[in-house]
Amino acid sequence: MKGKTIDPIIEAALQEDLPQGDITSESIIPDGSRSRAIILAKEDGILAGMDVASRVFEKIDPDVEFKREKDDGQKFSKGETLAELEGSSISILKGERTALNFLQRMSGIATTTGRFVEALKGTRTKILDTRKTTPGLRNLEKYAVKMGGGQNHRRNLSEMVLIKDNHLKLVGSISEAVKRAKERVAPGIKVEVEATCLAEVQEAVRSGADMVMLDNMSMGKMKEVVKWVEGRIPLEVSGSVTLSKIREIAALGIDFISVGSLTHSYRSVDISMEFMGE
Amino acid sequence: MKGKTIDPIIEAALQEDLPQGDITSESIIPDGSRSRAIILAKEDGILAGMDVASRVFEKIDPDVEFKREKDDGQKFSKGETLAELEGSSISILKGERTALNFLQRMSGIATTTGRFVEALKGTRTKILDTRKTTPGLRNLEKYAVKMGGGQNHRRNLSEMVLIKDNHLKLVGSISEAVKRAKERVAPGIKVEVEATCLAEVQEAVRSGADMVMLDNMSMGKMKEVVKWVEGRIPLEVSGSVTLSKIREIAALGIDFISVGSLTHSYRSVDISMEFMGE
Amino acid sequence: MKGKTIDPIIEAALQEDLPQGDITSESIIPDGSRSRAIILAKEDGILAGMDVASRVFEKIDPDVEFKREKDDGQKFSKGETLAELEGSSISILKGERTALNFLQRMSGIATTTGRFVEALKGTRTKILDTRKTTPGLRNLEKYAVKMGGGQNHRRNLSEMVLIKDNHLKLVGSISEAVKRAKERVAPGIKVEVEATCLAEVQEAVRSGADMVMLDNMSMGKMKEVVKWVEGRIPLEVSGSVTLSKIREIAALGIDFISVGSLTHSYRSVDISMEFMGE
Amino acid sequence: MKGKTIDPIIEAALQEDLPQGDITSESIIPDGSRSRAIILAKEDGILAGMDVASRVFEKIDPDVEFKREKDDGQKFSKGETLAELEGSSISILKGERTALNFLQRMSGIATTTGRFVEALKGTRTKILDTRKTTPGLRNLEKYAVKMGGGQNHRRNLSEMVLIKDNHLKLVGSISEAVKRAKERVAPGIKVEVEATCLAEVQEAVRSGADMVMLDNMSMGKMKEVVKWVEGRIPLEVSGSVTLSKIREIAALGIDFISVGSLTHSYRSVDISMEFMGE
Amino acid sequence: MKGKTIDPIIEAALQEDLPQGDITSESIIPDGSRSRAIILAKEDGILAGMDVASRVFEKIDPDVEFKREKDDGQKFSKGETLAELEGSSISILKGERTALNFLQRMSGIATTTGRFVEALKGTRTKILDTRKTTPGLRNLEKYAVKMGGGQNHRRNLSEMVLIKDNHLKLVGSISEAVKRAKERVAPGIKVEVEATCLAEVQEAVRSGADMVMLDNMSMGKMKEVVKWVEGRIPLEVSGSVTLSKIREIAALGIDFISVGSLTHSYRSVDISMEFMGE
Amino acid sequence: MKGKTIDPIIEAALQEDLPQGDITSESIIPDGSRSRAIILAKEDGILAGMDVASRVFEKIDPDVEFKREKDDGQKFSKGETLAELEGSSISILKGERTALNFLQRMSGIATTTGRFVEALKGTRTKILDTRKTTPGLRNLEKYAVKMGGGQNHRRNLSEMVLIKDNHLKLVGSISEAVKRAKERVAPGIKVEVEATCLAEVQEAVRSGADMVMLDNMSMGKMKEVVKWVEGRIPLEVSGSVTLSKIREIAALGIDFISVGSLTHSYRSVDISMEFMGE
Repeated sequence: MKGKTIDPIIEAALQEDLPQGDITSESIIPDGSRSRAIILAKEDGILAGMDVASRVFEKIDPDVEFKREKDDGQKFSKGETLAELEGSSISILKGERTALNFLQRMSGIATTTGRFVEALKGTRTKILDTRKTTPGLRNLEKYAVKMGGGQNHRRNLSEMVLIKDNHLKLVGSISEAVKRAKERVAPGIKVEVEATCLAEVQEAVRSGADMVMLDNMSMGKMKEVVKWVEGRIPLEVSGSVTLSKIREIAALGIDFISVGSLTHSYRSVDISMEFMGE
Repeated sequence: MKGKTIDPIIEAALQEDLPQGDITSESIIPDGSRSRAIILAKEDGILAGMDVASRVFEKIDPDVEFKREKDDGQKFSKGETLAELEGSSISILKGERTALNFLQRMSGIATTTGRFVEALKGTRTKILDTRKTTPGLRNLEKYAVKMGGGQNHRRNLSEMVLIKDNHLKLVGSISEAVKRAKERVAPGIKVEVEATCLAEVQEAVRSGADMVMLDNMSMGKMKEVVKWVEGRIPLEVSGSVTLSKIREIAALGIDFISVGSLTHSYRSVDISMEFMGE
Repeated sequence: MKGKTIDPIIEAALQEDLPQGDITSESIIPDGSRSRAIILAKEDGILAGMDVASRVFEKIDPDVEFKREKDDGQKFSKGETLAELEGSSISILKGERTALNFLQRMSGIATTTGRFVEALKGTRTKILDTRKTTPGLRNLEKYAVKMGGGQNHRRNLSEMVLIKDNHLKLVGSISEAVKRAKERVAPGIKVEVEATCLAEVQEAVRSGADMVMLDNMSMGKMKEVVKWVEGRIPLEVSGSVTLSKIREIAALGIDFISVGSLTHSYRSVDISMEFMGE
Repeated sequence: MKGKTIDPIIEAALQEDLPQGDITSESIIPDGSRSRAIILAKEDGILAGMDVASRVFEKIDPDVEFKREKDDGQKFSKGETLAELEGSSISILKGERTALNFLQRMSGIATTTGRFVEALKGTRTKILDTRKTTPGLRNLEKYAVKMGGGQNHRRNLSEMVLIKDNHLKLVGSISEAVKRAKERVAPGIKVEVEATCLAEVQEAVRSGADMVMLDNMSMGKMKEVVKWVEGRIPLEVSGSVTLSKIREIAALGIDFISVGSLTHSYRSVDISMEFMGE
Repeated sequence: MKGKTIDPIIEAALQEDLPQGDITSESIIPDGSRSRAIILAKEDGILAGMDVASRVFEKIDPDVEFKREKDDGQKFSKGETLAELEGSSISILKGERTALNFLQRMSGIATTTGRFVEALKGTRTKILDTRKTTPGLRNLEKYAVKMGGGQNHRRNLSEMVLIKDNHLKLVGSISEAVKRAKERVAPGIKVEVEATCLAEVQEAVRSGADMVMLDNMSMGKMKEVVKWVEGRIPLEVSGSVTLSKIREIAALGIDFISVGSLTHSYRSVDISMEFMGE
Repeated sequence: MKGKTIDPIIEAALQEDLPQGDITSESIIPDGSRSRAIILAKEDGILAGMDVASRVFEKIDPDVEFKREKDDGQKFSKGETLAELEGSSISILKGERTALNFLQRMSGIATTTGRFVEALKGTRTKILDTRKTTPGLRNLEKYAVKMGGGQNHRRNLSEMVLIKDNHLKLVGSISEAVKRAKERVAPGIKVEVEATCLAEVQEAVRSGADMVMLDNMSMGKMKEVVKWVEGRIPLEVSGSVTLSKIREIAALGIDFISVGSLTHSYRSVDISMEFMGE
């Protein structure tokens, strides 16, 4: 999450918040004023977004010093100092809201992901994210999922073939769809198929799919599928999977569980900035 | 929410999801295939984001027809069709996720805002948003708040003077801060001050502030403030205001209540796309 | 006037003047040649644009040293050295015209503004600029007005409500226009009304306008207005105000006089660059 | 002056004036309101900038109709209607200031150029502009010079070799400078030399210069030069050439006179917009 | 190869060739002049680049009509008309060189690829391209390879894991490298390994590689590999493969042969434009 | 070939090859791993592109050290080390292909140009390039021609007037075309005419053309032309000029020979990168 790749979204965010500067700070705080401030956790969580927060201030004023007390992927508790800043008071005030807007959201995602990962402890099942991410923030949100202990599914529609129900309505059969995909995409691309019953799983595997996604199947059906597949290809479970049900699914021998709510609905973790005097 | 202003974020979202096309659809669906599809509500809510969703498809393929059944600001119920699309199957599949990603989030914000607005029915108090918006999406999220019946607070740090606790730590006194702001900003700019007790409100009003924000005050304190101010300037209440407490606060005679959670934490409304055959 | 905000216009200016380099200097001056050069005032004035001039050379070649002898807002006399440069001869030649093009215009605006400000010495009336600025240079020109001792009026159409004659033709009445504006814009936004007689001023004040602009009123009319308003809201005078008439207007007790010619018509101050040998 | 080439500066100007819309018009004028408005000359002049003005409104709203009554290069008199607009009232109000800012400046340049051209009537001498143009507006200003009857000198430092005094200080001799230039630039590029006396003109011509610029020479010296050159190469006169002196210089047999003040200092022509009701 | 994706490179090419217009055509051809012109093959080949050529003219002037006589992927003979244009003479002249620059190169690649594909007729082996493409033109060149009958290998370093000799020097063993890749990349990503002998192929297959690339192996060695692999995974041959040797390699039972010279060294096919009068 | 001007094409190339990082290197090489690697010539040639190659790595990671053993314009032999790199292994691997893609092409052009220049040794005739360059790479390819000892012809259609056969079909006569050009372009612009026989050359010279291009003329015709022109203006020969015929043409007394194949068809020089351990 370094350098170039995060700059455009940071610049867009600063442009949104400071189209013509911070007229409050610039009109009432003397130019030479310097401050020390801390970024403070107001509740427990898993941290994500420190590179982004740090880069926000670097963009505004390279002379603001940003010292991390915690780093991405670490747990933190209410009351802990996550970072300490020192530099121009005006520069710190300008970046405050933007830095926190990133940090609170990304840590919110990492914290929620962490709860799912915790629930799977001891199993070999992995938590995957989805493409239900906030427009413009996909890379940051997928990074936050990793910080919470999750793994990333495909990043975009160009990276992997995933044949879903809407495709099948148009093509007619799984075997025809897999055949066409195999013929036309580059040899390095995997093909995954969404299936709703054992018969579809069987057709997918027989036509050469590299991976299958079980969509909203009952526990019983999933059991049958796992038994029939015998580990020949990886299996993913998708659908509205809740924290309470997840361990049970993993126990069936599923390789991946993908959870849309990690990124489509989240609570910001409460993190604030406090000025400490010079 | 028309035209130019929403294009950059839509282009960024499409670039994220389709850096090199949709290899699934392009490899398995014939070029000439045409479909009809609907955008379908899977739960109740208030709609926001139809211009954006429609523009997503226009950007991908101007020949996809997008017919709205509902428009922004309208309530919808589970099972209702929000829009109907007709055109190239591949084009519709390419835009599906991106359009839904916008629509689900924006409608989520409108729906939550609507609950706060409902709670204030019959009072003259207005719900305001804050700057705690998702980086890159501020304009869209502030628009969604309006669709839910809320009003927008300042859009950015360049638009209005708002003197908060961190500023006061650095300047020393409210009256000095207001004086400096009045001298230096353009004559058209209003000055608001954050206050934590009656004495601070009094100092703010006496030094010429145009508006005061009451930060985390008790009901008793707020009562005193409203009484003393006697309508000379508008009053805003800020802090963690919940749905249950909001009506009581409004009853005190407060003009505005600002609610950060409208945009910093939200649940996407469940909306999906279904293909209907040609 | 630092860093990021001035870069795009500087880059556009360099692109205009050096789309494919400076073929004269590059073909006849040896690569390693180094020079000392001065920026020299050829007439008296008030300086504005040193950050821009300095940044022009920094963009072309960060190794050119740019030492200021004078700074923005200071007066200078014919024959004075404003800055001294040292570095690659080719780099200095490449930036010469672009740097001077900025410096001469901005100092021209500051110098003219200074004359108006001088004429108001001893009164409490302030000189304001307008939106009649050169396309692409608004921020630089408004900054130059400040360097000459003026104050900035609204920067753009998004910042403040200013209801003018063309609006009133469409809305019908001042009171209706003010009412609509107050209902719809964010609570932090001020509303100013243009008025041509006392009755209009009275209607504006009664309907809650925060400020009134007197458009081309006679001295007699303005006297009446000032008397009636009694300082309740600030008053601005607009129209073709000349240096000779300005003091008389100020004496009436007017708060602001806005002068379009500061930026719509100006004379560049004569400033040149001289090479001094290495 | 069509299409693509003028769009970036128009977009920059609109961005400056409407970063977040026109909050006055948008809050008080009903969405569906339509108007007719005219662009009106308040003094005499030569027109330049109609393509730009028209494009401003096209960018804001393609449905605003813009009918020209006069076109670029034509003379107009005080009181004449230059164009008539019809369309959304809000769209017309949004574009008003930006369109006029372009039109007033460009017509100002054309009008001044026209005076110089008028003064040379009957001679074969041509008026040239210089690179002393407003940053970001070079193409528009050079176009305005042409509309006033002038001819354009080199557009930038990449287009032609022009060896000036500062170059000569660094290279040592005219003949060495011309020799180097001829060896290194593409065969299609002309070489001009600035000269201050007959000897320098002679050295320039003998070393193969394609054109010579006479810098601040007395009438007597220029006479000598014209006599010696005998039409072998074109001659340009530069320096502070005033309207009163220009005819006398032309009479010597000079080919080109370049005038910096055409673009470095100008007066906007007074042009306004009036709403006519629907 | 439609619309948006090809616009940036076309715009860059036009900017290169027409930074300030086509001064020849604009100064000597009357504005209203209209022409018919043809794009003419001067030698045999396979066509690629018609969308790009057509888009070049659309960008310059949407009113130029571009009628194709042949389309991408088709063979053409010396003397055949590939397209016919009709419209503004100046617009056609402006686009001529840029359109031909694309068309000649892309058809050159398609034509060469076609020779390799022809040589493999009757076998199941496919020709792949490499990442040795011209900077900025990768998508166009990979498209041209497809038009010539080839298939595309991975488009970039983000799409697929390909473990090469330089990686193995750093990691130590194939099995360790494959293991790390499988653990860390998304489940949809395939892993290919470059091998120089049978033992390496065996290690790759046993550690779970999805595909193996045989680098500069002798015919004998490749025979051994094919025999041992028995079709369990696809095999690719890389290295300096010439037209003469290619059929022999295919006969071994190789799935893919990748040929760098398709894009790193090519001859433009001779195609020109002729004006036919109006 | 420094700094700003080469950055956009490098960024485009890196974006093409690394849209989302190098997933191979990033997943299997430890973050802290450091390497030494060399860039190695696999055949003889003339070097061009070292600034670009070096900048590729600087863009990826400013901490990679890039030490040149050879510089642009120098000859190199098979087996020679051209540069040595030291730094993060992952960073070096990320830049390898992109840097080589530039270096191999540019050196290919320089090497071919060098062969033509060699063939002209002892004559005063110069080799020129054309506008038949790869879209997006014109500046780099023209620079490579210079490194091989060639000279650059006009860079684009804005820089010089070159009246070709297609223009003449539309204008009617050479003298009319030259007259129009002279009247309308800036005085610093040269006018060249393409001629196919002596009569056309004569008409061009008499109407004031600054240079003539002889298009596909026989040796006999060219001899006549050279004799008639007597050095009054420079002559250029164009058409399919091969290495074997070039010396003979030069001997006629031609000033310039332009060779399209220098850039429209070229062979990459074989250059590779080898890792040397830490």
